[in-house]
Amino acid sequence: MIGKLTIIGLGLMGGSLAKALKAKSAVGEVWATGRRSASLEKGLALGVIDNWTLDLAEAVAGADIVLVATPTLVAEQVLAGLAPLIDERMIVTDVASVKGNMLRAAESVFDILPPRLVLGHPIAGSEQSGVEAAKTDLFVDHRVILTPLPGNDVEAVNTVRQMWEVAGAEVVDMAVDEHDAVLAATSHLPHVLAYTLVDALAANGRAADIFRFAAGGFRDFTRIASSDPTMWHDIVLANQQAILDGLDNFAGHLQTVRQLIADGDGPAIKQVFARAKQARDEHFLGQYKAGRKPSSD
Amino acid sequence: MIGKLTIIGLGLMGGSLAKALKAKSAVGEVWATGRRSASLEKGLALGVIDNWTLDLAEAVAGADIVLVATPTLVAEQVLAGLAPLIDERMIVTDVASVKGNMLRAAESVFDILPPRLVLGHPIAGSEQSGVEAAKTDLFVDHRVILTPLPGNDVEAVNTVRQMWEVAGAEVVDMAVDEHDAVLAATSHLPHVLAYTLVDALAANGRAADIFRFAAGGFRDFTRIASSDPTMWHDIVLANQQAILDGLDNFAGHLQTVRQLIADGDGPAIKQVFARAKQARDEHFLGQYKAGRKPSSD
Repeated sequence: MIGKLTIIGLGLMGGSLAKALKAKSAVGEVWATGRRSASLEKGLALGVIDNWTLDLAEAVAGADIVLVATPTLVAEQVLAGLAPLIDERMIVTDVASVKGNMLRAAESVFDILPPRLVLGHPIAGSEQSGVEAAKTDLFVDHRVILTPLPGNDVEAVNTVRQMWEVAGAEVVDMAVDEHDAVLAATSHLPHVLAYTLVDALAANGRAADIFRFAAGGFRDFTRIASSDPTMWHDIVLANQQAILDGLDNFAGHLQTVRQLIADGDGPAIKQVFARAKQARDEHFLGQYKAGRKPSSD
Repeated sequence: MIGKLTIIGLGLMGGSLAKALKAKSAVGEVWATGRRSASLEKGLALGVIDNWTLDLAEAVAGADIVLVATPTLVAEQVLAGLAPLIDERMIVTDVASVKGNMLRAAESVFDILPPRLVLGHPIAGSEQSGVEAAKTDLFVDHRVILTPLPGNDVEAVNTVRQMWEVAGAEVVDMAVDEHDAVLAATSHLPHVLAYTLVDALAANGRAADIFRFAAGGFRDFTRIASSDPTMWHDIVLANQQAILDGLDNFAGHLQTVRQLIADGDGPAIKQVFARAKQARDEHFLGQYKAGRKPSSD
């Protein structure tokens, strides 16, 4: 049971967590704060939160858990604002998509990292955003990655873990670097590729025809290019090195495949395609078979 | 009204066309032929066709329209087999995903291209394949691209156009090269990119984690990497040059974006992402608004 939960940056993620915890009677009161009142007022009207204030100090006073749920680059700044307000028993955690930049921000804000600062990332989301899109079951059967640090208070990590488990998520621990490399490969790089492909095609003189005759495969492949440019620009800047590493690895493979196509090397091309199909089918069909709902992002 | 339609290579495409034409009473009898009897027997049992034979000459004798619906590379060979069997009134058309290689195959088979050889490509399909997946409405609200040649008999082109229109499709004319460039950009290149990304990640030591934490964006982005490797290897070989051109154009754009990320040039990154989102949303949301069902592939 969490006495007071404070959400900084009330949107889909924080709102859905609040609804899930309230549905399980796992939280006493939920406060929210942010830079503007609109989403806070909406959250209160919808019953997602119990109280709000634009004053950060008032919002976090007496909080058991403070959830930083602002956009990625803002979250770095929020940590600095929180620094003088954190007391010994307060747990601070976050939902940002990149963890290395949060760790670096924390290291620059604090001389010694607060033992109860627990970095986390729920792999869940929706096409929609904002507190009005919040839903009780957003995290059910989805994964939350925590990246505990050597100096972390074990009890604080366990409290954050239990909070997400109550909301229905499966919680997994991972090192900060590993998290950022895995997310670069599975999420950040695909977004960069999809944005780049659509932008390259839109610059083509035949753009109208190209889009006009695009079939379902293209629509799915480029769906993530309709994601919020500001949010993804944040993520790319936050996870710069891991994305560059993933991009270089991909570009190298692409040049190899290009050479196979230029050589007309049918058997080798078929081998690449068959290997990829097998890897994807194994992982995704296996996942489906196990009854696990695939995560959305 | 088509008296006799003969389908060479009975699968999803030919089967669906047969069902659609029968539903509109627009065909007298449908014959099919192929290399093996299994799908032909199935098509007869399902009432999709009226008769079948493994003998090509018997199959096409007296046909008004012969539809070549085999895999892309096989279709080239089928043209050679058809050459001595074509009479002056017979229309031959196809459904292959690449048109340049079909034209080159026809040019090598025939001294003078038959005026009633009409190349075409329905932009439709399904996750499923085979005659058992055939459905009457597969082509409804989908596009069929015809690539008429200068020497084509206008009446033959119009007959093929009407056949697809009766099946519910919107028929559009395009030059052979343009068709292959547009399809390379919207379909063939995305398949190569998706196969390459999944294969690159599967080769990574962290492959298990990478796939385990893949979210919905990755699943959609790589869905086409679960496509049939043999069919796509055919297409890549058939449309080699246009795919190489598209790939080089994309790789150039990717290197530009890579540099923006390496430079940490936030505004320029956001500009690329925003431009891509706008282009995609305009074309796809516009398409939805107009009430057009998006094509699947």
